[in-house]
Amino acid sequence: MIYNEVRKDYLLDRWVVIATERGRRPTDFARREREKVKTGTCPMCPGNENMTPKAILVYLKKGNGIKKAEDKDDFRHKNWLIRCVPNLFPAFTPPKKKIGKKQIMKSNDLVAAIGHHEVLVESPDHDEHPANARIPQLIHVINAYIDRLRELSARPYVQYVSIFRNHGTEAGASLSHAHSQMIATPFIPKTLEDELKASKKFMKENKECIFCNIIEKESNGPRLILKNSKFIVLAPYASVNPMEFWVIPKKHDATLLNLSQSEIKIFAETLKACLNGLKQIANDPPYNYGFHIALNKDAHQCYHWHLEVYPKLAIWAGFEKSTGMYINTVTPEAAAESLRRKISS
Amino acid sequence: MIYNEVRKDYLLDRWVVIATERGRRPTDFARREREKVKTGTCPMCPGNENMTPKAILVYLKKGNGIKKAEDKDDFRHKNWLIRCVPNLFPAFTPPKKKIGKKQIMKSNDLVAAIGHHEVLVESPDHDEHPANARIPQLIHVINAYIDRLRELSARPYVQYVSIFRNHGTEAGASLSHAHSQMIATPFIPKTLEDELKASKKFMKENKECIFCNIIEKESNGPRLILKNSKFIVLAPYASVNPMEFWVIPKKHDATLLNLSQSEIKIFAETLKACLNGLKQIANDPPYNYGFHIALNKDAHQCYHWHLEVYPKLAIWAGFEKSTGMYINTVTPEAAAESLRRKISS
Repeated sequence: MIYNEVRKDYLLDRWVVIATERGRRPTDFARREREKVKTGTCPMCPGNENMTPKAILVYLKKGNGIKKAEDKDDFRHKNWLIRCVPNLFPAFTPPKKKIGKKQIMKSNDLVAAIGHHEVLVESPDHDEHPANARIPQLIHVINAYIDRLRELSARPYVQYVSIFRNHGTEAGASLSHAHSQMIATPFIPKTLEDELKASKKFMKENKECIFCNIIEKESNGPRLILKNSKFIVLAPYASVNPMEFWVIPKKHDATLLNLSQSEIKIFAETLKACLNGLKQIANDPPYNYGFHIALNKDAHQCYHWHLEVYPKLAIWAGFEKSTGMYINTVTPEAAAESLRRKISS
Repeated sequence: MIYNEVRKDYLLDRWVVIATERGRRPTDFARREREKVKTGTCPMCPGNENMTPKAILVYLKKGNGIKKAEDKDDFRHKNWLIRCVPNLFPAFTPPKKKIGKKQIMKSNDLVAAIGHHEVLVESPDHDEHPANARIPQLIHVINAYIDRLRELSARPYVQYVSIFRNHGTEAGASLSHAHSQMIATPFIPKTLEDELKASKKFMKENKECIFCNIIEKESNGPRLILKNSKFIVLAPYASVNPMEFWVIPKKHDATLLNLSQSEIKIFAETLKACLNGLKQIANDPPYNYGFHIALNKDAHQCYHWHLEVYPKLAIWAGFEKSTGMYINTVTPEAAAESLRRKISS
């Protein structure tokens, strides 16, 4: 093709120019200088538990295994492995009393921000990020995601739970201690609603889940990064971010609530391998990741959970912000090749 | 309201949490340190014309007025006021030969990036940004936008022209010399398409332009920033960016092609006043702006051009990127009050 390509996302009506004219190679990003992180007392480090709101979930060491905190003393314990606390500046807050749908959905353009906003401290070790975490610790993190997801999604006013991670100040992490966040919302957010609609339409027309179809189409192609017994990792056809990749379970399921412990272990290993590859290629770049799931029962057949990882290697500027179109200077095929090589080396 | 508000955009199905719990005031941003700009030879400064591709449009000084470059010597001239050149790394490129719709729209998920990508150097003076530009120079800039828009929109393969500006490295400006960009695309980008749909629907249901309705509703309210004989400036109800504001002409028109010279002068003064207010409040923050217009004839009745200014005072992180929902820590009402006061002082 003699012109740049403009590609559409698998599901969304979202278009991206793959602008190869700029000739960026994945390794070009290694030269970028990283923003320095502020130092000071870390409110997430062991011993500073009094600096955060009261914990909601705590995993404690118990012999070779873990124990979930149950009583006051457990929650006060400094010897924790995982700690989940309410966000000090929540975007969404729990209802003060029982609340009906009409009190939440105020009008066509106004909704009360009822829900939850939590911070999940991933390790007592300040720097134990997924790219270099011990696998048993990363398994705790994923189990904690699932524990919180199960509890939050059971609340009557919760329609969606976003589990996400910001890594590095440029990607919006205001604290450098390894942590994720969870936001429970009283409605299904726009992008997920759009994905649900597209996956329902695909199911109706093709009698097949669109993600199962993507797995099949991409599993031997130039955008494949990794595949193992349980997961496939690929650079999506219309990546809006340089070096973007998605981790998709081979088993069709709408949420991660039903993962077995062996699947969780493989997920941890897969995630670590890919994030470590990215870290090595692009000099520990800032990134965001977010789980895409469906909680509503009518979506179980057509929706397929996955994790999207967005390295922050470009800036969305006036064009992107005012048109909703994107420009990506690294082809997904080059991103996949580079990650594939690094992971297998 | 005891909870944070989640607000919907006037037109788009785009939702934002106005997260006042964080208690950010507009002046908090003044403390931010700005990224330093790299120094070196500026390819946009007079004398370095050989560092850019051949100019497409040049305004030259002629007595008290201007003259558009016509012949070779004019285009080579170093004594220019405005200079428009092709982008060295274009996202969209002109067709090499006559090209039909089928050769552009390759399939449902692939389009050839046919179009134009131009850089408009706004002044021979490196630092003459709109916030502190001389009004006659800013009038030249707007006239040049209109000149290029008229020419680009006349091409048969052009369906939309995005005129935008990135200010500061954090907002994606790779060069600090005052400049804007224009991208002509072979289709209407997503956000504009969505706005068109919403404005057509509103027109059908209310027999009125939705923007004319917004002007009426907001012109005496808490989100008004400025109004004069020709324009209104407001902080939109569901601003996704802290300190975001929109400049809307009172006269209904789908594009800026029909502005009179006196309207252009008032537009220049309005834009300068607002950007200067923002500069003073938030320590010359990075920002993006983008014109929203409609070129297709069937939209002339329902669509109403305007300029959207997005200060870059927050980072879109994992939540925003994976859900398409936004969190804004400054209420539009506080943003409007702060800009209103600064502009009128």
